[in-house]
Amino acid sequence: MGKVKVAINGYGTIGKRVADAVALQDDMEIVGISKTRPNFEANVAVGKGYAVYVPEGNEDSFKKAGVPIAGTIQQMIDAADIVVDCTPGGVGEQNKHIYEKAGVKAIWQGGEEHELAGFSFNSEANYSDAYGKDFARVVSCNTTGLTRVIYALDQAYGIKKARIVLMRRATDPGDSKKGPINAIVPSPIKLPSHHGPDVNSIMPHIKITSTAVKLSTTLMHMHSINIELKKKCTAEEVVKLFEGRPRLMLIGSDVLSTAEVMELGKDLGHSRGDMQKNCIWKDSISIDDGELYMFQAIHQESDVIPENVDCIRAMMKLEKDGAKSIEKTNRLMGL
Amino acid sequence: MGKVKVAINGYGTIGKRVADAVALQDDMEIVGISKTRPNFEANVAVGKGYAVYVPEGNEDSFKKAGVPIAGTIQQMIDAADIVVDCTPGGVGEQNKHIYEKAGVKAIWQGGEEHELAGFSFNSEANYSDAYGKDFARVVSCNTTGLTRVIYALDQAYGIKKARIVLMRRATDPGDSKKGPINAIVPSPIKLPSHHGPDVNSIMPHIKITSTAVKLSTTLMHMHSINIELKKKCTAEEVVKLFEGRPRLMLIGSDVLSTAEVMELGKDLGHSRGDMQKNCIWKDSISIDDGELYMFQAIHQESDVIPENVDCIRAMMKLEKDGAKSIEKTNRLMGL
Repeated sequence: MGKVKVAINGYGTIGKRVADAVALQDDMEIVGISKTRPNFEANVAVGKGYAVYVPEGNEDSFKKAGVPIAGTIQQMIDAADIVVDCTPGGVGEQNKHIYEKAGVKAIWQGGEEHELAGFSFNSEANYSDAYGKDFARVVSCNTTGLTRVIYALDQAYGIKKARIVLMRRATDPGDSKKGPINAIVPSPIKLPSHHGPDVNSIMPHIKITSTAVKLSTTLMHMHSINIELKKKCTAEEVVKLFEGRPRLMLIGSDVLSTAEVMELGKDLGHSRGDMQKNCIWKDSISIDDGELYMFQAIHQESDVIPENVDCIRAMMKLEKDGAKSIEKTNRLMGL
Repeated sequence: MGKVKVAINGYGTIGKRVADAVALQDDMEIVGISKTRPNFEANVAVGKGYAVYVPEGNEDSFKKAGVPIAGTIQQMIDAADIVVDCTPGGVGEQNKHIYEKAGVKAIWQGGEEHELAGFSFNSEANYSDAYGKDFARVVSCNTTGLTRVIYALDQAYGIKKARIVLMRRATDPGDSKKGPINAIVPSPIKLPSHHGPDVNSIMPHIKITSTAVKLSTTLMHMHSINIELKKKCTAEEVVKLFEGRPRLMLIGSDVLSTAEVMELGKDLGHSRGDMQKNCIWKDSISIDDGELYMFQAIHQESDVIPENVDCIRAMMKLEKDGAKSIEKTNRLMGL
């Protein structure tokens, strides 16, 4: 069997990372990526050998800019087995009828509603449910980070209630337009926020509430987690549980902040210096009055990338066993 | 009876504000403030008419800089009825024997341990316990902000458990040395943090845990508050309760962040643009699954200032009724 043909529709923060991760797999290949404007990212994509497809009518602007194109986005979709839609939140929804008409499978990102795909995905929590599916939504970076931890804890001890405070980065490091540059923004002001409860799109039985703020930083999100567990356990047992999970990384107290976490990602040689696993401060894991407390840092640009790769593998029936897909994705991405 | 003579030992962020607030009261006066170095703040103090006292041996540096001085810190203490110690955290402890020897009363700030004074103060929670006391500690900005809310809720509904996430500003706006400038710092990493439980220095019976992070912002602290109450209540009842408290301010959703909160403080004509009351987002007050959630912003530079004034009034037996002192302080400070 030939490699599965993957199209990347939308080549921004997530799209370019999914493209690079897919290109590293031995059972899938990139048929092309889409760009709407011929900027520096389009040039880099060409340099990497990706076929660049553009919206019908935009061909001239690419020609003028000297960026070689392979055709229209419609042609890219027609050439693919599966499309990973990485267009901005809300835009992906408008593409559904195009994918349906072309008869290709599609994955959307967390910026879209659960209902669009009718199925939300996390590699560890519900890989087998994605097997052979036509449509799926890989949940957002925050929901992915929460689901990894909550799934593990729920399997081991059962979760009575989870209370999450999400401290979100203002914007991604490559953006120079958005703020705040010196403020804490309650977002939303009306509580609880939707962020934590989005875990319910994958695990409907979890009782979870959340509040969220937006901060003057670009590097990572931070979660302050409080969980009441059904079974008693010690902090040491939770540490051991997390050490056995493929997408959780325990970090030491010498990693002082999200700044040092990202420095570690670069030192480890990860693509773009990313940190695709949850970064959990080992010493923060505490049991107080029977409740678990912990801090984890979530790299908004990259934690969903291995999940997209696994999701492709499940939907295209390349691998039945989720654990095997996770191991393969991690290994080929060098995690 | 003449006015109570107040000395301000340490003229930094808190000291200069306490001096200005005391100067506005009709039952107390400033006998002097202390400065260790003749910088711009010393010049401004002189301009305001404050007598500047300096450590013995430092007189020459002030003379060279052309800053007129009134004498040594020891002379200032000897001339006072009460000293408000606003020296950096940990330094105030070393001054205790000086105050004891001089036979003056003293107030320390939240940077010192509870044990130093043996009594921790909050205007609403325990004014009458301070009546006539020789030593007291006005708790930190975060503890003051939490105590105001927790005392009100505990009186009205009883508190079963409080879980607080403190999002702390990195440093004050007038400091150009400290960071982080782009990171989220779990601080401390080991959980729970001491911040919330410091409320127990005033209200020992409250069950409270907290986690805390340090952020890339200078304006205010933010608290994400979760409280399980003993009696049932609605969000509207909590709003009404808070509206009746003298040091809580409810703000609307058009106040988007801590940046707009501080802009409001300037627009209201508060001294230095401060925000001495807790700023609680009215729309954030929610009851979910029987638990209260809310956001409040705390101005680290100023929320303890009216508490220091009330504490002087109680210790010097100027007013028996805490509510009357609070009303007077608020009125004379223009709050």
